Amino acid sequence: MFNKNTYIERRKQLAKDVKDGLILILGNTDSAFNYTANIYTFRQDSSFRYFFEYNLADLSGVIDANTGEDYLFGDDVEIDDIIWTGEVASIRERADVIGVKHSGSKQDLKNLLEAAILQGRHIHFLPPYRAENRNTLSSLLHIKKDHIEKFASLELRKAIVKQRSIKSLEEIVEIEKAVDTAYEMHTTMMRMARNLGTYEYQIAGTMEGIALSGGGPVSFPIILTTHGEILHGHDHSLQLREGRMLVSDAGCETPSGYCSDITRTVPCGGKFNQRQKDVYEAVLNANLAAQEAIRPGVEYKQIHLLAVKTLGEGLKSIGLMKGDIDAAVSEGAMGVFMPHGLGHMLGMDVHDMENFDESIVGYDEKTSRSTQFGLKSLRLGRTLEDGMVITNEPGCYFIPALIDKFKSENKFKDFVNYDLLETYKDFGGIRIEDDILVTDKSNRVLGKPIPKTVKEIEEIMS
Amino acid sequence: MFNKNTYIERRKQLAKDVKDGLILILGNTDSAFNYTANIYTFRQDSSFRYFFEYNLADLSGVIDANTGEDYLFGDDVEIDDIIWTGEVASIRERADVIGVKHSGSKQDLKNLLEAAILQGRHIHFLPPYRAENRNTLSSLLHIKKDHIEKFASLELRKAIVKQRSIKSLEEIVEIEKAVDTAYEMHTTMMRMARNLGTYEYQIAGTMEGIALSGGGPVSFPIILTTHGEILHGHDHSLQLREGRMLVSDAGCETPSGYCSDITRTVPCGGKFNQRQKDVYEAVLNANLAAQEAIRPGVEYKQIHLLAVKTLGEGLKSIGLMKGDIDAAVSEGAMGVFMPHGLGHMLGMDVHDMENFDESIVGYDEKTSRSTQFGLKSLRLGRTLEDGMVITNEPGCYFIPALIDKFKSENKFKDFVNYDLLETYKDFGGIRIEDDILVTDKSNRVLGKPIPKTVKEIEEIMS
Repeated sequence: MFNKNTYIERRKQLAKDVKDGLILILGNTDSAFNYTANIYTFRQDSSFRYFFEYNLADLSGVIDANTGEDYLFGDDVEIDDIIWTGEVASIRERADVIGVKHSGSKQDLKNLLEAAILQGRHIHFLPPYRAENRNTLSSLLHIKKDHIEKFASLELRKAIVKQRSIKSLEEIVEIEKAVDTAYEMHTTMMRMARNLGTYEYQIAGTMEGIALSGGGPVSFPIILTTHGEILHGHDHSLQLREGRMLVSDAGCETPSGYCSDITRTVPCGGKFNQRQKDVYEAVLNANLAAQEAIRPGVEYKQIHLLAVKTLGEGLKSIGLMKGDIDAAVSEGAMGVFMPHGLGHMLGMDVHDMENFDESIVGYDEKTSRSTQFGLKSLRLGRTLEDGMVITNEPGCYFIPALIDKFKSENKFKDFVNYDLLETYKDFGGIRIEDDILVTDKSNRVLGKPIPKTVKEIEEIMS
Repeated sequence: MFNKNTYIERRKQLAKDVKDGLILILGNTDSAFNYTANIYTFRQDSSFRYFFEYNLADLSGVIDANTGEDYLFGDDVEIDDIIWTGEVASIRERADVIGVKHSGSKQDLKNLLEAAILQGRHIHFLPPYRAENRNTLSSLLHIKKDHIEKFASLELRKAIVKQRSIKSLEEIVEIEKAVDTAYEMHTTMMRMARNLGTYEYQIAGTMEGIALSGGGPVSFPIILTTHGEILHGHDHSLQLREGRMLVSDAGCETPSGYCSDITRTVPCGGKFNQRQKDVYEAVLNANLAAQEAIRPGVEYKQIHLLAVKTLGEGLKSIGLMKGDIDAAVSEGAMGVFMPHGLGHMLGMDVHDMENFDESIVGYDEKTSRSTQFGLKSLRLGRTLEDGMVITNEPGCYFIPALIDKFKSENKFKDFVNYDLLETYKDFGGIRIEDDILVTDKSNRVLGKPIPKTVKEIEEIMS
């Protein structure tokens, strides 16, 4: 955990920004795995940790926006249970550690909220993403569970986005630790991917073990696949075969709750063939062009467009694209090869604050999501600021169903060489992703550099 | 998956045993981790897999107990989504693979149940352990969500217990695979525990990585602690220190959904001191005595009593206990040292069918849970049968809060040498656990033998 004052300042700022009403931040409860007592490893809500730190189930925090008073609620372990749990700090002791003035039981929370409801005070809460918290909000606030979202507070979300979007130095140190663990995960993947015949799950499992050995879980279910063109896939059942690229998209969380999110793509066996090398370098150039251009004051949407343009130029030199690449970009033809966005914010959530509502996280009053294929998948479009941490993850995919669809619709025929593209349907996909801090004038790629060029990858795999 | 006929036969038997009404077996949905789209690795409900196999979210199965007709429900992937998911089998195709006659969408399930409700048919379902399925049952069956348990079917649970309690040869092969992966997990732990200063989470993470590399998750959150006397603890934050025992209680699941559950306890650094060796051998003798006695026709409660008696005799020879050990056992004094039960059933759940209601899983018409401290924690008391798989996990713990409590109450003073016991408050705990198949005349310890004697452990750690 950070210094007590960090949490005090964050809560004070939040009260100031929200101005009026009670702010309720529910912590998470345990999630059952295959029966009530067998649970998934606990994951606290990120906003709860941001303001109230504890990575423990069944806690809630309240901040009175009018007075600035704060509260930590949860039930103490009963004396009889100490036989089984060992000595456990009380809620009062925990509240002291993070500088919270009031503390109480779950019943005290209920009473506080009931009184506030009777006084007609506004109660601000975040939209839930777990059924347990939806049910809890419904019962605490007397709102039907299917109507909870309607009443979730936009002011609260905006005030939290304002704080969590800009990372402090101590937060950046934590994210960098997470990237350093990802370095171990991905370099291990590279060494294991030398051996044709290895199963994807053997590599993915070993990588997850490295994340866990670093003290945190993976920040999302690892994507580790020789079919990188299947973008929504978590299958790990295949063996590494000659001629396939292995896409490895994986990161971890630190014990303090900060994420990394890194992608590397390597040739199964360790040597790129010419076709793989050509496409790889087109993607790498897109990644490097974006990296060069990221700085405060620039809209991330423009960085996305620069990256796909660079990719397009690379694909044109291979012969997969043709014509005016600027026109291809503006007409959306790059979506044939890269149908996803260039990146997203990263922090305590791997897609930071994704549950809040993208119009206030990745976009703002001045920017909004495009409806164009490809660009409409961009999670982050707004102007970059000093202290933001973002991902830079261009990719190139040969998706048979998508190729067939566009070809049959005669789409983008001025830009796409469908004849050559047909012969790439067995290629798979490539993605290269780093985590980047926007600095006062430019940016910095976070963490220990992970092999990224063809030469570096072939070296570590040799 | 097993042969199609396995699933057909299981469903047929279930219909026959339940006799009347519709049997609804809900599969699990995804569980959100830190926002809606970021999920925990999916874990299917074990009973769903037993009858309908698929380890995929958002499926449900129905069996008509009157006619034997069966149904698989779920929504097909839309054509547009295939761009992202790749080719995916349809519900109809999936139903064919496991020999299910009817298939349909989630809406079809709703319609089928509405019609059955209107006809006044009884709908059998299992008690939910996840909030999502509680909400789904509530909405499908028009039962208030807090009243669901009251209406969960006892007949259905009894009929499933009848089948799942007795493992087939093909199921035993799977459990044995899970134990063999646990062999790798625990021998790796032993080699890592040589090095004092190692953090518990480094070992636990590596072990979980081995489970995952074997293709399945851990069967429960790993217990890996130098404070084995804290029975309800999942903390992994400590370093291995000279003089502490490391308790490692961990197992995995196979891709087919079968569990292992193994405990080994080793001295940090690799060498037992005399005090550790003496207590260890008392626990080992309890484990071996139980192992010797397990056979069909014996109540598992009697095996538990034999194990704790053997432990008591060992502790008497150390001087920690005194007097008549038979009397100590019958008066419950062994609970001071081993306040938990000797074991439980194991299968597709690590505590097999724990969510059903213990009175029909671990006990039956003839046996019920004791209320005596220690024995009341025994999950399995009933008569053993050929084909059951159970755990054998005696332990001995020195729990300061428990020692203080009993001492201050003057309890068991004829049996416990509290003066010597005071000096063991820094000892920690020891547990030794194997997975055992009850055979037609005796039993078989499953899997590759994992070092268990003092000599074997010191050898692998040297």
